[in-house]
Amino acid sequence: MTQEEHNYFRIKPIGIIHSPFTKAVGTPIQSALAKGAEGWIDVLPAFAEGLADLDGFERIWLLYWFHKASKTKLKVKPYLDTNERGLFATRAPCRPNPIGISAVQLLRISGQRLYVADIDILDKTPLLDIKPYVPKFDYFEVKRFGWIEKIQAETRKANGRFYEKE
Amino acid sequence: MTQEEHNYFRIKPIGIIHSPFTKAVGTPIQSALAKGAEGWIDVLPAFAEGLADLDGFERIWLLYWFHKASKTKLKVKPYLDTNERGLFATRAPCRPNPIGISAVQLLRISGQRLYVADIDILDKTPLLDIKPYVPKFDYFEVKRFGWIEKIQAETRKANGRFYEKE
Repeated sequence: MTQEEHNYFRIKPIGIIHSPFTKAVGTPIQSALAKGAEGWIDVLPAFAEGLADLDGFERIWLLYWFHKASKTKLKVKPYLDTNERGLFATRAPCRPNPIGISAVQLLRISGQRLYVADIDILDKTPLLDIKPYVPKFDYFEVKRFGWIEKIQAETRKANGRFYEKE
Repeated sequence: MTQEEHNYFRIKPIGIIHSPFTKAVGTPIQSALAKGAEGWIDVLPAFAEGLADLDGFERIWLLYWFHKASKTKLKVKPYLDTNERGLFATRAPCRPNPIGISAVQLLRISGQRLYVADIDILDKTPLLDIKPYVPKFDYFEVKRFGWIEKIQAETRKANGRFYEKE
């Protein structure tokens, strides 16, 4: 094993996310812009026990693998902008570790299946983690949010430019 | 390569997080409970270009590897509670994919070093990603947040029970 390989961590899917969005083109770019879009998540049986008590939460974080992301780009032109921005100042998927986070609405749980709304995630995306959305931990009033403050978000759908050719 | 190994994804540190917290015992359990605690992040030179435009954001998400987490437990007794809960209804580190998310305050950037406050992360934690905190994407009013609603958070410090022996 090389030194470089030593520095990797291994992660694995704990389930699969299903949504109406089968192609990057047309997928809402954030859950907040995907009002009404519904989907479901099938959690692998091995992890079912960990779903206890989750049904009390109105909203949950999904962490997932951007499985269709193109290779890493450190400068990107975000969907919301016409200027190039540093990757880490954007939510674009073409990241060194292509992990996405989305706070989706939890509608109900049936066995190992979670029904969710406000989903902005591609169909068949590998799920990495679920965390409860907790106001005290996640809800911050901020006055400054960079280049996004200045943008009137006319374009609210992805156009595929951060994904592999479909 | 076995079938199981095929199903893993590889991720790698893009930097290292530094904080006053060198042991899990005593580390604030969430950034919202860590007001004032300051730290810094050294991003690896290879990723420096991606930091452009980040300085406009008041708060940023850090995604990181819980490098001191104990092995996965699907039922845990959270710091805030006296009952066992399903792991995914908690933010405990002993997860199938031990990835943490914290929205910290960005104080300033100097080269590849980010100075942050409200940090709830152990010293020397490997950084996986940085994303801007954007109200439209991350700020949701929720009425229901499960077992946490009912808890008066008396204990706001970690006691080490989800971490390896120190």
